[in-house]
Amino acid sequence: MRLPELRASVCQANLELAASGLVTGTFGNVSGIEREAKMFAIKPSGVPYDRLTPEDMVLVSLESGLPVEGTLRPSSDTPTHLELYRAFACGGIAHTHSECATTLAQARLPLRCMGTTHADYFRGDVPVTREMTAEEVGSAYERNTGLVVVETFSQGGISPEEVPAVLVANHGPFTWGRDAHEAVERSGMLELLARMECTLRTLAPAAPPPARHLIDKHFLRKHGGDAYYGQR
Amino acid sequence: MRLPELRASVCQANLELAASGLVTGTFGNVSGIEREAKMFAIKPSGVPYDRLTPEDMVLVSLESGLPVEGTLRPSSDTPTHLELYRAFACGGIAHTHSECATTLAQARLPLRCMGTTHADYFRGDVPVTREMTAEEVGSAYERNTGLVVVETFSQGGISPEEVPAVLVANHGPFTWGRDAHEAVERSGMLELLARMECTLRTLAPAAPPPARHLIDKHFLRKHGGDAYYGQR
Amino acid sequence: MRLPELRASVCQANLELAASGLVTGTFGNVSGIEREAKMFAIKPSGVPYDRLTPEDMVLVSLESGLPVEGTLRPSSDTPTHLELYRAFACGGIAHTHSECATTLAQARLPLRCMGTTHADYFRGDVPVTREMTAEEVGSAYERNTGLVVVETFSQGGISPEEVPAVLVANHGPFTWGRDAHEAVERSGMLELLARMECTLRTLAPAAPPPARHLIDKHFLRKHGGDAYYGQR
Amino acid sequence: MRLPELRASVCQANLELAASGLVTGTFGNVSGIEREAKMFAIKPSGVPYDRLTPEDMVLVSLESGLPVEGTLRPSSDTPTHLELYRAFACGGIAHTHSECATTLAQARLPLRCMGTTHADYFRGDVPVTREMTAEEVGSAYERNTGLVVVETFSQGGISPEEVPAVLVANHGPFTWGRDAHEAVERSGMLELLARMECTLRTLAPAAPPPARHLIDKHFLRKHGGDAYYGQR
Repeated sequence: MRLPELRASVCQANLELAASGLVTGTFGNVSGIEREAKMFAIKPSGVPYDRLTPEDMVLVSLESGLPVEGTLRPSSDTPTHLELYRAFACGGIAHTHSECATTLAQARLPLRCMGTTHADYFRGDVPVTREMTAEEVGSAYERNTGLVVVETFSQGGISPEEVPAVLVANHGPFTWGRDAHEAVERSGMLELLARMECTLRTLAPAAPPPARHLIDKHFLRKHGGDAYYGQR
Repeated sequence: MRLPELRASVCQANLELAASGLVTGTFGNVSGIEREAKMFAIKPSGVPYDRLTPEDMVLVSLESGLPVEGTLRPSSDTPTHLELYRAFACGGIAHTHSECATTLAQARLPLRCMGTTHADYFRGDVPVTREMTAEEVGSAYERNTGLVVVETFSQGGISPEEVPAVLVANHGPFTWGRDAHEAVERSGMLELLARMECTLRTLAPAAPPPARHLIDKHFLRKHGGDAYYGQR
Repeated sequence: MRLPELRASVCQANLELAASGLVTGTFGNVSGIEREAKMFAIKPSGVPYDRLTPEDMVLVSLESGLPVEGTLRPSSDTPTHLELYRAFACGGIAHTHSECATTLAQARLPLRCMGTTHADYFRGDVPVTREMTAEEVGSAYERNTGLVVVETFSQGGISPEEVPAVLVANHGPFTWGRDAHEAVERSGMLELLARMECTLRTLAPAAPPPARHLIDKHFLRKHGGDAYYGQR
Repeated sequence: MRLPELRASVCQANLELAASGLVTGTFGNVSGIEREAKMFAIKPSGVPYDRLTPEDMVLVSLESGLPVEGTLRPSSDTPTHLELYRAFACGGIAHTHSECATTLAQARLPLRCMGTTHADYFRGDVPVTREMTAEEVGSAYERNTGLVVVETFSQGGISPEEVPAVLVANHGPFTWGRDAHEAVERSGMLELLARMECTLRTLAPAAPPPARHLIDKHFLRKHGGDAYYGQR
């Protein structure tokens, strides 16, 4: 994918996010990366979704973390995306403040894998990060947000390919995927799962999780070499 | 109904399901059967709803369980539908991951009959299946899902005509009816009832169920020989 | 209002009910009365809302309780409406199975007056009826439903003008007003209040009700001789 | 802004409020002020939103509190707006009975600042007022409502610029901002936050609030001299 296509694709994914009802006002942002060019495109900061054009997408260098052209400022969350692209082998990232995923983040509770709907998309619990320290917030806050996400996966022994989502404590969710569109699709699925989790934790807090064999069965019938879901 | 009409009807019912808001992404599927031809038509696997045409519906033999024509693969849940058609005298089946019915399935709680809204459609509690064993999941998983549903009705002494719905533990609901359209309609009603049940269990977990005479009155004024609801 | 206008008005109110999202399928019904003619018009039984025409509305005698013309059967809930028209000085009645009002009815809990939103429409708690006996359900069920509603108001010392709504236990709400349109409007307001009540009872079950002077202030600034809300 | 522009702007903001889904029926009202002219414009009382025109907006004197022209009566809540304009340096005020903010007001619970979504708009908890006395309700009720709001901020040491919203006990929310449009936008954000708070309090009542440094970071990256969110 060349850079003009990347910008068009990322703009389109941002519009999909706006149309999904997952974001309010100017909250949220989506990016996509062209790894050969070592460049990612991201939504500009604070621009209403209904005015976004491909030209507005800001190109950012994966090496320097700085915008490389254009006059608009990139999303204030750009350094978070940067650290995720550096650590995770993904092609697109979405960030929302979607209602129930954010509520779980505010409760500092993981989104547990309680059924096959979840296991079709995420192979296990979606983790919640630890709180950030005053030092982490005081300086390079957005970059540190990304580093805390990366730490959550490395210290927890969680595969970012198998669980392509995280809840940042007292903040909200990030999701990632092959490209910006898949990242947005997963934000929508995460919110549906979070709605079910909020209801389930209230309704039946002691309900047991499904057996590991059921989770693996559903994840693996859709993902990986032995998948048989969909058309081949 | 001849097979081209069956395909058109099943395609239409799948579109009704998509329009109902009960499914997200490519989740869910609807089938309908032509019992004289010993054939049912079902949604293809993983194809987005907005692209479905009657020709895409896959015809499956009730005897062999195998597709009999067409190039698309049938829904991965086809063996579940097959076992339900073999055991239950129904003409259509719908499967969703609708939010609150799925939440109850994840809580492994039945959808209790708590009022006349429920009794107008289902004569008693909608049961939840037992957990599936590692063996049942490890081999012929989708077929075993159907067998566990059938076991739930036979062992529980529940009539699949009077209670045309089930919650598969940690998975989601299946509903059935005279044809694919009625199955979809009942999926919508099941979700409404499940939303009320989730709220009721949280709000007033000890609320007593209605008397049997009220449940029977409502079910029987709409169903069976003495029904007087609607136009005759 | 002459009878053709009554039919048109009641048909329109039924369509408003359908558009409101308060009813699913063929649930619910609205009627309106012409007291000089001793006749009320009501939705036919089990006819989908999108096919209703003024001619379909069934005229029913206030004296005999029987349809006086037309070929369609009136709503199965007609005898309930009849008893309410006989006992209460209202011009229209609406019945729904709206989600949260029905949930409270299933919990057998009144819809408490917890704030000014409620007091602007209903001067105090909306009561829930007692359970109906096997005898009341076994014979003349729908008429007995109406009688139990009337009993709830007379025995509870509640004014049906000041509290124009009821929750029938394990069934759902009825509302009434000057005409069919006002009855439908109040069904919508009742559902909003019931949503808030379901959340409030879960969130803060011990929250104290507002003082009587606040309830009366809001009810009386909109209703009665000293009202000063709106244009005069 | 001249008075005709003020009326057009306030009418438009009322229509935005109606389109937002935050108000039912004729509930709610929005006003905007022209401080040089010592005049504010406000919605007329009890007029349906779909009929509002700029000419219908009622001009009210900041000094006398009385309408200065036009034949329609101003919103019954006009004296509340008046007291807020006198005490707070804002340009517009919105009042709704939005579902979850009203539920918190009925629970007499503040809307706590539990995450960055909140801190992006409000620097700390949104307070709930004390109950009003029989005397305050009995005479000059709407004016006293405004005075109790002002008291809540002054006695609580809360800045109305940093926390531009309040929950009036057993009533509902008021929000304010630079102009009528910003007040309406904040009503929408308040409702989103209130939905999350209702869920969070039910789900995890003991969840700890975020650290002060996280709240300040988010508020100050969007507001004040060091803000770096958005385009400059």
